[in-house]
This record gives sequence, C-alpha cells and structure tokens, in this order.
Amino acid sequence: MVEAVEKLTKKSEDPSKWYLQLVRMAKLADYGPVRGTFAIRPYGFAIWERIQRDLDNRFKATGHQNAYFPLLIPESYLKKEAEHVEGFDPELAWVTIGGKEELEERLAIRPTSESIICDFYRNWIQSYRDLPILINQWCNVLRWEKVTRPFLRTAEFLWQEGHTVHATPEEAREEALKMLDVYKDLFYDTMALPVLTGMKSPSERFAGAVETFTCEGLMGDGRALQAATSHDLGQNFARAFDITFLDEQQERVYPYQTSWGLSTRTIGGLILVHGDDRGLKIPPKLAPIEAVIVPIWRGNNKGEIRRQAEALYFELKDFGLRVEADLDEEHSPGWKFNEHELRGVPVRVELGPKDVEKNQAVLVRRDTGEKEFVSRKELTRRLRSLLEEIQENMLQQATELRDANTRRVETYGEFKEIIEEKRGFVFAPWDGTEETEQKIKEETKATIRLLPFEREEGKDLVSGKRGETAIFARAY
Amino acid sequence: MVEAVEKLTKKSEDPSKWYLQLVRMAKLADYGPVRGTFAIRPYGFAIWERIQRDLDNRFKATGHQNAYFPLLIPESYLKKEAEHVEGFDPELAWVTIGGKEELEERLAIRPTSESIICDFYRNWIQSYRDLPILINQWCNVLRWEKVTRPFLRTAEFLWQEGHTVHATPEEAREEALKMLDVYKDLFYDTMALPVLTGMKSPSERFAGAVETFTCEGLMGDGRALQAATSHDLGQNFARAFDITFLDEQQERVYPYQTSWGLSTRTIGGLILVHGDDRGLKIPPKLAPIEAVIVPIWRGNNKGEIRRQAEALYFELKDFGLRVEADLDEEHSPGWKFNEHELRGVPVRVELGPKDVEKNQAVLVRRDTGEKEFVSRKELTRRLRSLLEEIQENMLQQATELRDANTRRVETYGEFKEIIEEKRGFVFAPWDGTEETEQKIKEETKATIRLLPFEREEGKDLVSGKRGETAIFARAY
Repeated sequence: MVEAVEKLTKKSEDPSKWYLQLVRMAKLADYGPVRGTFAIRPYGFAIWERIQRDLDNRFKATGHQNAYFPLLIPESYLKKEAEHVEGFDPELAWVTIGGKEELEERLAIRPTSESIICDFYRNWIQSYRDLPILINQWCNVLRWEKVTRPFLRTAEFLWQEGHTVHATPEEAREEALKMLDVYKDLFYDTMALPVLTGMKSPSERFAGAVETFTCEGLMGDGRALQAATSHDLGQNFARAFDITFLDEQQERVYPYQTSWGLSTRTIGGLILVHGDDRGLKIPPKLAPIEAVIVPIWRGNNKGEIRRQAEALYFELKDFGLRVEADLDEEHSPGWKFNEHELRGVPVRVELGPKDVEKNQAVLVRRDTGEKEFVSRKELTRRLRSLLEEIQENMLQQATELRDANTRRVETYGEFKEIIEEKRGFVFAPWDGTEETEQKIKEETKATIRLLPFEREEGKDLVSGKRGETAIFARAY
Repeated sequence: MVEAVEKLTKKSEDPSKWYLQLVRMAKLADYGPVRGTFAIRPYGFAIWERIQRDLDNRFKATGHQNAYFPLLIPESYLKKEAEHVEGFDPELAWVTIGGKEELEERLAIRPTSESIICDFYRNWIQSYRDLPILINQWCNVLRWEKVTRPFLRTAEFLWQEGHTVHATPEEAREEALKMLDVYKDLFYDTMALPVLTGMKSPSERFAGAVETFTCEGLMGDGRALQAATSHDLGQNFARAFDITFLDEQQERVYPYQTSWGLSTRTIGGLILVHGDDRGLKIPPKLAPIEAVIVPIWRGNNKGEIRRQAEALYFELKDFGLRVEADLDEEHSPGWKFNEHELRGVPVRVELGPKDVEKNQAVLVRRDTGEKEFVSRKELTRRLRSLLEEIQENMLQQATELRDANTRRVETYGEFKEIIEEKRGFVFAPWDGTEETEQKIKEETKATIRLLPFEREEGKDLVSGKRGETAIFARAY
C-alpha cells in the first residue's frame, strides 16, 4: 500500500502557505513556464465548468446571448478611451511580430474587451430597433501582473465579460444592477459565499465607467476579495468609439453601455472562504463529485463489499447524483478519507462489513464531520437531503464568519487597531474625498471595498467632516 | 413596413461571393480590425455552442476531462520538437513586450498546444498509475494566415484540442481511432455531414505525428474540407519533452501520445454543404431555433392571431422545442419567410386567419419547401417527428451529393479532366511517393485528402508503378 502523505499546513498557522499547498495537493492548478501563467487542472476546471454552466443559464434566463470577439486589439483602439488606456496600459502584453514580419501597429492581448467590442457595435447599431444589445463572451484575458497567485491573481485568466448597449441611461443602470444581482444570486445560492454588494468609490472604479458595482467577499483570514463587478459605462465608450443610433424621433444620439465580469478568481474565493485544515470544502451545488463511496474491506470480504459498492454507485448515479466509487486497492480506507476530504467532496459514503450485514451505509459530512447510519433503502433520498443541508450550512457558516468579522467604528484609533489586529470588514463614515481614502490606505493598507446602497451619516474618521458609510478592508 | 431586402447571390453563380454574403446577411460573423480576425456573432456562436455541447458530452462519455493550459508558449518550448516547430514557425504571432518591458524570451500565442501541455505532463506523469491521461481543452488558437475567410480559415479560431498519454503504442493508436469515430459520429448524427475517414499521406501529416487520421467532407462546389483530425504522436513529443514513467517492471520508459482537434471551421463546412440560394439550412439537431412561428395577420384579426401564436409558442417551448415566435409588426409575412429561410430555421409554422378558424397550422420545411396542414392537437407531435425527418433527409441529400461527386479513375488524363471540370472526390491508385503526390498537386491543384482504411491495388496514375487507393480532391 502507498501511504506516504504530504501534510497540509494549518490554515491558521500560515494561510498563504496553506493556500498554495492546497492548490497543488488537490490538483487544482499548476504553474506555467511564463511568470504568472497557470494550467487549470481537470479537478479545478470541473469546478469552473459548474460555475460557468450555472452562470450561463442565469445569463440566458435574463435575455443574454453569447458571442466571441478577437483576442488581439490594435493599440489605436485601446487609446480611444483615455481613462481606459491609462488604467490598463501598464499591464499589457504586446504582439509585435506576426508571420515572421514586424507589425505596423502593435497589438495588445485583450486585458478586457470594451474597446474591440465597441468597434463592432458601431457597425451593428444603426437604429433604436437594434437595441438593446445583450451580449456576453466567455474567454481568456491577460494582464501582466507583478505578483501572482493561482486563481487569485494570474497573468492570464478565464472569465466572462458581458457588454450591453441601451437607448436610455435608466435602462443601462437597471441592467448593471440586474447583473450585480445575478452575481449575488450565484454567490449565495450556488457558491455559499455571502458577498456584500454596493458601489466602488470613484478611485476604485473600472477605467472608463461612470459607476462600478461590486460583490465583495470576506475570506477566512479577514481579508476581502472582489468577486465580481458590474459597470455602468454611461456614454463614455459610445462617445470615444462614435457609436450612435437613430432614436424614435429620428435623431442621431449616443447609446448607454454596461459591462460586467466574473473570473476564475472566484475559485480562489471558494478555497479561501470554505477551506480548512483538512483541505477544500466544496458546496454541493458546485462539487464535481457530490459523494464518494469508500468501501472498507479486508481480504476475506472484498468481493461482496466491492459488489455492494458498485451497486450503490449505479443506484446513486441513476438517481442523478455526481458520485464516485473509490475501489482502488492500493490505498487504505484512511488514506482515501484524507484524500477525499482534501478534495472537499461534500459527503463520504462508507461501506464496511458491518454495514453490508445490516443493510446500511455510513454518511460522513465534509462540512461538520458528522456521521450518520442510514439504511440502504433510505440512502438515496437521505443523501440528497443531506447535500441540501450541507449547502445551507456552508452558507450559514460563511455568513457567521463574515458577520463576526464585520465591525462599525467611530474613531480612527479604533479603525487602525481593528485593521491591524482583527482585519475583517469595517464600516466607517467617509467624507467622499480621495485624500482621506488615500491617507487611510497608506497608513493602514485598508481600502474602501464598497459603498453600501444604504448609507448612514457620520463624521469622517480622518477629516472629521460630514461623511457617509463606506466599508473598508485589507484586500487580496 | 420595412421591406428593403438585400438579394443573396446564387450559390451556383459565384459560390465564393455567395458564402461571404451569406455569412454577413445571416449575422454569423463579422470582420475584425486585425487581418484575419473575426467576431462570431450571437447566431453563429449559438451554432458553435450546440456543436460544443454535443461534442463535450461525447468526450465525457469516453472518459475525458477538460482542463485549461496557458495561451503563451516560450520560443524554446516550441523548438523542442523539430518537425513541430518547422510546421508552425511561419504562422506564429509573437509577444515581445509585457508590462512595458522587453521580454528576455519571446512568447508565441499558441497555434496548438502540444509543446506547452507536454511540459506540464512531464511533471504530472511519474508512474504507470498516472496513465492514461485523457484531457481536452476548449480554447482559442492563432495562426498568422495569409488568405483568410470567415470560419474556413481565420487567424484566430476557436477549437478543442485533446491531448492524451498512454503506456503502450496500441492504446495510443486505439485512442486516436476512437476519437476519429467520435468526430465521425458528430458529423453524421448531428451535423448531417457525411465525411470520409482515413489516414493522411506522410506529407500532409500533423507536424510531429507518426500518423494523422482525418474526416474529410465534400462541399457543395466539389471541393473537399478537412473537418477534424486525430493524431497518433507515437513517442515523438515524449522524447522531445522528456516525459517518462516507471512501468510495472519499474523501468523508466517513454509513453505514447495522441492529440485531436475540431474547430469553428466546421461551421464553414455546415454552410457550404447545406446552404442553398435562399440561405443557410441548419440541421435540426444543431439549429439554435428549430421552428419559428410566423403569424399571418391583417388589421382586423391581429389580436386573435397574436394570442394563438403566443399560446402555440409556449406550448412548443414547454414541449422542449427551441422555438421562436416572430411577432414583429414592422415586417410583412413574406419578408419574415425570407429572413428565416436565410437563417436556415428548419421549420416555419404559419398561422393565418383560416388556420385559426380551422384549428390548424401550416408546417413548412426549409430543406424541401414542402408544406403540410396539421391540426393544432397533432402539432407538437408532428413537429418533432418532422424535425427528425428533416435531420435524416439532410444527411441523405448530402450523402447523395457526395456520392454523385465521387469517382474512380484509371488514367491521369481522366483524372485531370474530372478535377478540372467536375471536381469532387477522385479515387485513384498512388505509388506512395512524395514525387507523384507533388507532381499531381502542381499540375492539377488536387491533393491527397486521405488514404481510405480499405485500399485496393492498382497502377499509379503518374509513375505507372504499383499503387494503392488514395482519395484526391481540390481542397479549401
């Protein structure tokens, strides 16, 4: 038997080491030869596929269609929207040679696609009848980042980017908020991530947007993670790219746009929020494998237990569950328990000699470690309800963690102490100036993660002027 | 009413103009700013999504998993396999600047991913227990092509590339052939494209493969299109990238690999094979919209017919059909008929005053133009069976077209005449030398598309030496 097992660092001892080790041990991702690039391995990609499928269904249910736009963006296109190019310029990778020839104009690998998509939209939009345009694209993008970490910050990453065009500012604002809700629903219902939603401060807005809405999650170590954003672009891009349409009064006017994106970064959030000292914990709705059957056999009963495990496997599979039977004979049951806990499989189904005798199985929850004995007759039904309970419990656990680490402060002293010692989300009044925001950032490394939709008045921590609630945290 | 309609060029008159015009008018794709790049518009992308879903299910049913590998490949990696780099070198796009700095080593945008994937596999494979590796990736690739045409040949395109590793040459060969069959099934069952399958001649093999298997379709204009390929890579890449494993006898040996791919090019094949003077014809299984309801109303009965059309829409939708109701009031029924024929919707459901009166509807087939009157009670059932008939008929039509354009020849004179005047597939004996192959190519522009699995003996057309069947055609 192969029993050598690498020991996972404790999450509380060294969260950063724990994260990197877990990503490697659970075979989620692996480093590529170019700095900041990664392969997403099959188990990690299976999680992404489930996020994709779920989100894509939500996009289609809200009237969106998928399309695909070119990877390479001419430099002159990126330069058309001034703020946009300023925001992305330092992070671009440039193609300068194609087919053995030096190019006349260098081409950026898309860091995001507003500029190239606007060029197409200019041709596709003539009249109010062509609106709204509700298009999404699933693709890879590239930003030349200095410090990278698998999933959380990588040079190349996978994402979706929605790009819509509307006749009125109200419609565009409504769309941006609608997609924020779509993300929020995904996070709560599927990923068990209780994000906070609100607006970004002007300095944290997407380059070229008039308003950026955001979903911010709180990770296990008290740091915040921006999990998805939705932007109201106003007419900025339409003006820069000269997109116009004839309205119902036959006047040529600029339309209003939105864009919104969610990336493989969310997998990093999933690991950080739910993972523990034993490894990943994947919410059932996202889990590539919802339950794993582990037979516990010795020499003389191997045949019968194997037969039962196989029968159970097909029974659960036919019931529509994503299930695996670990019938490998190289490893001990104990080794397998560790392995599947590491991979975050929500439920382990143990089947030993006594269970076969008693016509039962043991269900072990990954989230709480609780065991229960269930008769074979009740098993499929119970497993399904147990998965629902786990999904709910994981959201509750994450919500409690978030709430226990969310604090309101009145003074800057209190603020600094909390950010330094406890981290978490800190609600504090902010006077709306970039100076205050910048000072707090320099002195505490905390940034404004979002401005909640409902804001209370109070005195700014630094300036003492009238302010309204902002939510601060140190962020990934 | 808006009645201005652009007239589609006849396919027989100018197939090339017809193709480009159809792609534009049916809103399948649009030209990008960089030469050879295209946007795939929502209707075109919806076809690709259906191909993807279908193929992905087939991959998973044969034990494959998806993963994702980096876009950028360092030059030194590409150079490791000599034939491979030679094959792709002229078509590469190079990133030379990242994050405002000149890179020490330039990076190619992947033209295909063997080299970068092999680098990961070297680390993932240690023992025979790690084999087989059965991984697929859906992604974009880029080849700097000189002459491009939407879908058929584009600089950037979307595809899937499978990359597998096996312990024995037999297993690798079996895998390469299995995936060829998976493609063949997709083409026959879903795309109604009766491809021929076989091997490539050595000169047409994938750069670095020991054997390339191919699916070749015959287009409406008598030219062949390579629709998908599957490669037995032998140990070429394993040796070049130093991938080894400990076999059961604890000896360190090289494994055997395969790769196989299918791209958005198949959409070009779909258009060329099935399209006609009225536009696209999409096989029902691939059609984003299987049936479109077109109400035929005049002022006084608009309300009732609209209600009936809406009721029918929901009835068909609930029945699981992909259906659309064209309730637009700007355009006449005639305009709509043309529009949906252009888009290749398999069935039009007409609903006029008489039909409402008689409690019936009219089903009009896109493939044959045939009309039938069906009672509302029978409609959903009849529509489903009609879609099956259309699917079958389209395969039959395409098969008849292929067979009518497939000829066997004994002399070079006959060969040249057919290639010049009729095109199509020509079966002829070939002596296996590159000289003959090259001479035929230079003199007739026909290439060996494939060597069938069952080959007959005969005299080579050019050399007169002993030869075996090869299948020639002019190709896209």
